[in-house]
Amino acid sequence: MAAAPPVTLDDVREAAERLQGMAHRTPVLTSRTLNSLVGAEVFIKAENFQRIGAFKFRGAYNAASRLPADQLAKGIAAYSSGNHAQATALAARELGTRAVILMPEDAPRSKLEATTGYGAEVVTYDRYGQDRSALAQALAADRGLTLIPPYDHPHVIAGQGTAALELLEDTGPLDALIVPVGGGGLIAGSAVAATALHPGIRVIGVEPEAGDDTKRSLEQGARVTIPVPRTIADGQALDTPGEITFPINQRLLDAIALVSDDEIVAAMRFAFERLKIVLEPSGATPLAALLAGRVDNPPRRIGVIASGGNIGADRFTELVGR
Amino acid sequence: MAAAPPVTLDDVREAAERLQGMAHRTPVLTSRTLNSLVGAEVFIKAENFQRIGAFKFRGAYNAASRLPADQLAKGIAAYSSGNHAQATALAARELGTRAVILMPEDAPRSKLEATTGYGAEVVTYDRYGQDRSALAQALAADRGLTLIPPYDHPHVIAGQGTAALELLEDTGPLDALIVPVGGGGLIAGSAVAATALHPGIRVIGVEPEAGDDTKRSLEQGARVTIPVPRTIADGQALDTPGEITFPINQRLLDAIALVSDDEIVAAMRFAFERLKIVLEPSGATPLAALLAGRVDNPPRRIGVIASGGNIGADRFTELVGR
Repeated sequence: MAAAPPVTLDDVREAAERLQGMAHRTPVLTSRTLNSLVGAEVFIKAENFQRIGAFKFRGAYNAASRLPADQLAKGIAAYSSGNHAQATALAARELGTRAVILMPEDAPRSKLEATTGYGAEVVTYDRYGQDRSALAQALAADRGLTLIPPYDHPHVIAGQGTAALELLEDTGPLDALIVPVGGGGLIAGSAVAATALHPGIRVIGVEPEAGDDTKRSLEQGARVTIPVPRTIADGQALDTPGEITFPINQRLLDAIALVSDDEIVAAMRFAFERLKIVLEPSGATPLAALLAGRVDNPPRRIGVIASGGNIGADRFTELVGR
Repeated sequence: MAAAPPVTLDDVREAAERLQGMAHRTPVLTSRTLNSLVGAEVFIKAENFQRIGAFKFRGAYNAASRLPADQLAKGIAAYSSGNHAQATALAARELGTRAVILMPEDAPRSKLEATTGYGAEVVTYDRYGQDRSALAQALAADRGLTLIPPYDHPHVIAGQGTAALELLEDTGPLDALIVPVGGGGLIAGSAVAATALHPGIRVIGVEPEAGDDTKRSLEQGARVTIPVPRTIADGQALDTPGEITFPINQRLLDAIALVSDDEIVAAMRFAFERLKIVLEPSGATPLAALLAGRVDNPPRRIGVIASGGNIGADRFTELVGR
């Protein structure tokens, strides 16, 4: 896809128009128990109820829908074993084109099936022997497909930002917004929207302790690569911030909070038992940061993006069950 | 409490007014996956998001709020080890009075704590040696408290019926409404509202196979007592239909579907993995009936009351984990 202009509030608003009636306008949940535990009013944007079970559909659909008609007609592609795979597959189906998704051959059967279930063709590769980025480029060139990147594209970032836009429309001004950081697309888009609407808002990212590439990069003032992190938060197991997302986050973020896997599990349990919702590990990290006291001086009104809920009951049992 | 006039749509509407701003107006969820599995449009009234985690708050609050001021001031009481305990405790707190809840001394600590957490006094009894109904009457008489029955009272029934009223306001006409049956209060109130608003609607109850007292009673044309059922659906482990609820259900119900514990567990898993919500066993029975094909000739537009989500992560793991 073409190179990037910076992302603006208008880009997020345009994405919101494209997503109208296509993505779900997910609910904002509140809990008196949570409020009294945190000592603040907390508003949870429940993206676990988004189509495909996570926010990723917003960005993938926005990006795909902006392709020229002839380019779109040839099809789109993605490499992902996670939520972006399903997001791209569903975006293609909704836009009447084909999707080819490159996934590791040992990806869980459930993820393969979910992706083919949306009508996508899945091409597998050997995770240990092949470079997936090069493979994806070759596959796309070969078949005339357009790659939809998982985060590092302005249209993807603008699409993800609609989550924060909707949240703020529903809640009015907030003092802080807490968002998971993986490749940085969700928080970059959210920060663009939130800080443009409410200049005083603090935007706080959350990374798993083991996957603190964005925190380190912010401290260094430049993108840092860390060893591939081992964490239960698979949506955040990235080793480098995005090329396009990082400068945006460098400009707009106030802080990064880190959470341990145990704190994430505790937050998943809290979401299950008190909020009655299912969150995947990455989706529970902002709640984990609040519940574990990892956010310094939590202000009065706090928005949280609970980014997804794609976890099987068996995996949940493994993580949360005693 | 005083003897009963029959419950009417107006009673349900009056209850809805009393509950406005007090109970949550819970969301109605839909799922394309569910629709294609069932071959119908299914609308899920998510009472797991209700205050205290289940529909019971509706009836308890409505009943308590209708007591004369001097009677209310003396306090209310309930005997329950389940959701009605917390519902009565919270209703008392919201109405500025006290609640005394009679619970078996071996009730789970989490349930005791949840109830005292709402400010109620808990009095325990020996489940195997004492008759709880007699004890509750004595306790209430002794302390001047008014017993709030869990289902067998017109104001409780009218309160529960607001769940169906809200659902139908949100969805418009439905061809069928599927509701769990325990003591029969939720379905009686729901059937009153639904059949008055849409005379052609089929109201279908769901009982666990082991707890089919209402099904048998409907077949016999009179209230039948069965052995105390063993089922994971603890909210439906009753042995006799209610004295007041049964005649209403006899008049208004089309059928009772039975579901096995395994079918309930499969529905809980489906709710978790596909809908991203937590349902307790009783709350999952209507979904179980649909998914297991226990509803004959499912019509085009079906409402389902998912009545509650009070289950700990550990118990969920025990039931659903492999």
